[in-house]
Amino acid sequence: MKKRYLLTPGPTPLPQQVREAAALPIIHHRTPEFQKIFIQVNEGLKYLFQTRNDIFTFAASGTGAMEAQVANLLSAGDKAIVVCAGKFGERWREICRAYNVEVVSIEVEWGKAVEPSEIKRLLSEHKETRAVFTTLCETSTGVVCDIKSIGRIVKESRAVLVVDAVSGLGAEDLQADNWNVDCVVAGSQKGMMLPPGLGFCSVSAGAWKVINNSKLPKYYFDFQKAKKALDKSDTAFTPAVSLIVALKEALQLIREEGLENIFKRHKMLACATRDALCALGLKLFSGTFCNAVTAAYVPAGIDGTQLVKLMRDKYGVSIADGQGQLKGKVIRIAHLGYMQSFDIITGVSALELALSELGYKLELGKGVAAAERVFSNY
Amino acid sequence: MKKRYLLTPGPTPLPQQVREAAALPIIHHRTPEFQKIFIQVNEGLKYLFQTRNDIFTFAASGTGAMEAQVANLLSAGDKAIVVCAGKFGERWREICRAYNVEVVSIEVEWGKAVEPSEIKRLLSEHKETRAVFTTLCETSTGVVCDIKSIGRIVKESRAVLVVDAVSGLGAEDLQADNWNVDCVVAGSQKGMMLPPGLGFCSVSAGAWKVINNSKLPKYYFDFQKAKKALDKSDTAFTPAVSLIVALKEALQLIREEGLENIFKRHKMLACATRDALCALGLKLFSGTFCNAVTAAYVPAGIDGTQLVKLMRDKYGVSIADGQGQLKGKVIRIAHLGYMQSFDIITGVSALELALSELGYKLELGKGVAAAERVFSNY
Repeated sequence: MKKRYLLTPGPTPLPQQVREAAALPIIHHRTPEFQKIFIQVNEGLKYLFQTRNDIFTFAASGTGAMEAQVANLLSAGDKAIVVCAGKFGERWREICRAYNVEVVSIEVEWGKAVEPSEIKRLLSEHKETRAVFTTLCETSTGVVCDIKSIGRIVKESRAVLVVDAVSGLGAEDLQADNWNVDCVVAGSQKGMMLPPGLGFCSVSAGAWKVINNSKLPKYYFDFQKAKKALDKSDTAFTPAVSLIVALKEALQLIREEGLENIFKRHKMLACATRDALCALGLKLFSGTFCNAVTAAYVPAGIDGTQLVKLMRDKYGVSIADGQGQLKGKVIRIAHLGYMQSFDIITGVSALELALSELGYKLELGKGVAAAERVFSNY
Repeated sequence: MKKRYLLTPGPTPLPQQVREAAALPIIHHRTPEFQKIFIQVNEGLKYLFQTRNDIFTFAASGTGAMEAQVANLLSAGDKAIVVCAGKFGERWREICRAYNVEVVSIEVEWGKAVEPSEIKRLLSEHKETRAVFTTLCETSTGVVCDIKSIGRIVKESRAVLVVDAVSGLGAEDLQADNWNVDCVVAGSQKGMMLPPGLGFCSVSAGAWKVINNSKLPKYYFDFQKAKKALDKSDTAFTPAVSLIVALKEALQLIREEGLENIFKRHKMLACATRDALCALGLKLFSGTFCNAVTAAYVPAGIDGTQLVKLMRDKYGVSIADGQGQLKGKVIRIAHLGYMQSFDIITGVSALELALSELGYKLELGKGVAAAERVFSNY
């Protein structure tokens, strides 16, 4: 008998009502029944995205939605500023380059957040910049980006601001409209508490002006087609019906808890995780902690990949290894989506047991106690 | 109380074990557990696609998979022959044009199938043709295309043959390897008995030579990335885990029934549907019937859109209206995927009741009797 626990930054655990909704008999997407659900979903998405803009829902992973933004906003030869502070910033750059967009990269040391002033400097240097691509929570490093300040800066330029919020949405406050974010990209399998398979793009009025001039080829992800359909509460192509029906349930849960409480809960879980790791003597990887995932260095002499494997195979607890240059060097523990205090307690407990087994000297229960102290103060 | 019945050409009804699999607690996609499932899925797909080629699974609708084929095979300015015998043939053309591919269209009257000799003629006229795009079952007309003959013809040229089998796969025999089909496109919500949300592309060795020279931009749908991942039984980007877990169940059902029996069952259901419609005095729309969906003219004086709505809203039975130029003029009844005799009986019975209510003179039960005669002979 082995119960399984998912503390990875996507997929994240699913509430039972979401799973059950995904298993309902399938309905046709061009019916009043589905349309009613889709209207509720679109209202719920606007609440979650904190925007009055249209949000397009695609059957795709978050990467598909990222590509959709690039293909709809730009033309070959256009210039874009890309913040590269981890694997997902690099993904923006790779997508732009695949489309022959000229990239001005801001290379940020992994574990650090971009200085908004650097974006300001580059925007004044490259006035023809069409778009700025950033990442709310850089899942590969556990760093949160100061989108509010960046929004103020980009607003003064002719560029549109695009934020990859795939792993951050629903964990970190992102006030799309208040902060002048033109386009937000999201994915279903993170803070939205759904299986993977849906990608989302929000589009501001300012972004539409750029979109209307875009010459990059697109069809499935074409925002013009998506907009025409959405205006009739429809989708341009067959939507992932079962996931959208499940999304309705998830958005209902989000409404019931309320964004403010959701952010508070994520902050509490993140604090507890960080305190637990520090209590066990681990060094946190980043300096600008996000509330979706925490990255910490693996103690000297221990292989992070082996640690993750041991936790998963022996204890049934999945956390994430480092990505890219950090593989084996850091572990990443998610506190994202359908999680509460005892999920963190379980994760920390499994980490204590596994580290101990690998020969790391620690006092069993010390991390758990640190987490409990955080919970008892909330 | 209203029970609902789905006789639409996608989404199609789901077997209970498939729905239940889609509702299982989510697992991480980079684990031995998921890898084991994905290996089984890829073996099952090869059986269903009747190919030894790689099959890529994307979180996307069938249209996304169609676009993937175009973007991976071609470069701007390349020439492609496109068979346009309905809405989905036209979609190939639209996608090609969105990517600045030069299209040589074969305009086939809706309801008819392309003459393979026409493809031969155009291939000899346009020797630089890089790809031929066709449709196995044209869902908008209920016509099946002679892919076997087309395969023989295209094989003699330098072009690759791409078949949109989204609505045909699992209903019509399509021997990808035996018939020299380079690329097959499929979607999950038809004969595969899954919710919508997965798109599939198979790729032959011959197609790879073309793919390696393609210069069209792509990222999410990039076959090179997909291939690199698939070689490790992985996906380039987060897969739609719950749908893939459900796909394993569906492919298991397909294996158990066997392709030959599945084709026989679809043929029986299609025959019964056609005989029932004829017995009711309806005129079939096409001359080259496919086994996935049957299209028939709506009787004079009756509005097809209203008929479809009445069947759905009063009787809970969903069939499809005509698409594009055929809206309101034809109805389309699917016999596709998880369906057997009593699904057809239900559909025909509802049609009889609704037609009668709309003032069409018919003998109640006559269509059902015709369908039963087909079933009793199988």
